Amino acid sequence: MRGNGSGMEERYEEFLIEGRNAVLEAFRAGKTIDKLYVQDGCKDGPIQSIVHEAKKGDTILRFVPRERLDQMSAEGRHQGVIAQAAAYEYAQVEDLLAAAREKGEDPFLILLDGIEDPHNLGAILRTANQLGAHGVIIPKRRAVGLTGTVAKTSAGAINYTPVAKVTNLVQTMQELKKQGLWFVCADMDGEVMYRANLTGPLGIVIGNEGNGVSRLVKETCDFNVSIPMKGQIDSLNASVAMGVLGYEAFRQRYEKQ
Amino acid sequence: MRGNGSGMEERYEEFLIEGRNAVLEAFRAGKTIDKLYVQDGCKDGPIQSIVHEAKKGDTILRFVPRERLDQMSAEGRHQGVIAQAAAYEYAQVEDLLAAAREKGEDPFLILLDGIEDPHNLGAILRTANQLGAHGVIIPKRRAVGLTGTVAKTSAGAINYTPVAKVTNLVQTMQELKKQGLWFVCADMDGEVMYRANLTGPLGIVIGNEGNGVSRLVKETCDFNVSIPMKGQIDSLNASVAMGVLGYEAFRQRYEKQ
Repeated sequence: MRGNGSGMEERYEEFLIEGRNAVLEAFRAGKTIDKLYVQDGCKDGPIQSIVHEAKKGDTILRFVPRERLDQMSAEGRHQGVIAQAAAYEYAQVEDLLAAAREKGEDPFLILLDGIEDPHNLGAILRTANQLGAHGVIIPKRRAVGLTGTVAKTSAGAINYTPVAKVTNLVQTMQELKKQGLWFVCADMDGEVMYRANLTGPLGIVIGNEGNGVSRLVKETCDFNVSIPMKGQIDSLNASVAMGVLGYEAFRQRYEKQ
Repeated sequence: MRGNGSGMEERYEEFLIEGRNAVLEAFRAGKTIDKLYVQDGCKDGPIQSIVHEAKKGDTILRFVPRERLDQMSAEGRHQGVIAQAAAYEYAQVEDLLAAAREKGEDPFLILLDGIEDPHNLGAILRTANQLGAHGVIIPKRRAVGLTGTVAKTSAGAINYTPVAKVTNLVQTMQELKKQGLWFVCADMDGEVMYRANLTGPLGIVIGNEGNGVSRLVKETCDFNVSIPMKGQIDSLNASVAMGVLGYEAFRQRYEKQ
């Protein structure tokens, strides 16, 4: 289920590839490139080949001023292009369902609608692992991927709990619904979590640190649940909220057996 | 219950005071100085006066090479001494109990046995606020204090949930036990949290990120409880663990009413 993470467990730093040949080779070797940074105005043949490769896959393409590339460059020889590779390989959504089937369990997934802080993603992977969740789904855009910092803060969980990256979270949810999953969204206005039924084939959706769950994703959820809050402030830290809601689902799923 | 935090809510950066007069004045004005950094070998009169002031209170004294001070200095005129002030004022343990009494509630406190990461402390303050805990107790040594980063990551909770800093956590627990509090320690070997009684006058003890709860503190606790973990890794992030255990106590305290 995990990709070729072997030997990479110790590579916790961001994994940047710079220079035209190195970047092109990375694409051709099938390496997962999360983002490609190309210098504004660069349109020669080699750059076009690289952009072509990027467009074949899920890579996010960014045109940036040369100064930005100079700043990012570790080796000072970017030649107008820097690729940001995933420190770890992503799984497919089907892998997550297969993991549940193998264990004879109802699927239990965590969907993250735009977590941006790598420390939060790392802590969430750690919690997902301890909950026995079958995997985590993240969107391609406006979210942190499996960077070195995420790997480090996951305390090893990244090696066990698969993470799938999808282009369109709503579409993925709709497909998973056809396979019997229910989706519950963490939302201030929802029913208090103790009164919701969090058993069965379930996906828990956690929103962005600042903006919460986006409108379309929320509308695609089957129900909203809230974590009770007695305080004067607005919300919990996203990874804490995921832990609290995830463990409420855990309690219902495993304690009531 | 809160000290003179007025006007400081926006000061999220570390609050360093440098130079002999400025530091001495800060002490004499009664400002809470968490740590005092003094240049190795500096023993003249003004420095001795400052060290004398530091020893009157709870300040931790560190003798460091001049290069270290040069590095820390923002203004380049430390004159052999830099003080690290609390970005927020600390409460007294009695204030926390008074807050519970005022609300007519059983005391519900969070004790942190050596949290070092300011993001964790900030997230914990946030959760403590939402749980309606009456306050947080931290030790003076080997723990992060109320720094600017903590204030920022607390998302405002630092303005509402009081934090007391104590010299000896075990001694404080013993005194609180005389006032009827029970202490429960988050520990892998403990009884699963769902089966423990987490109602009544309670303090929840969360350990250090790497080492957990220290031996003496653990021995002073009345019982140990564990968060169930199905994963392949060791533990949860400290702020997530506090959230999960804190909300289990919340569920028992408020849902069973």
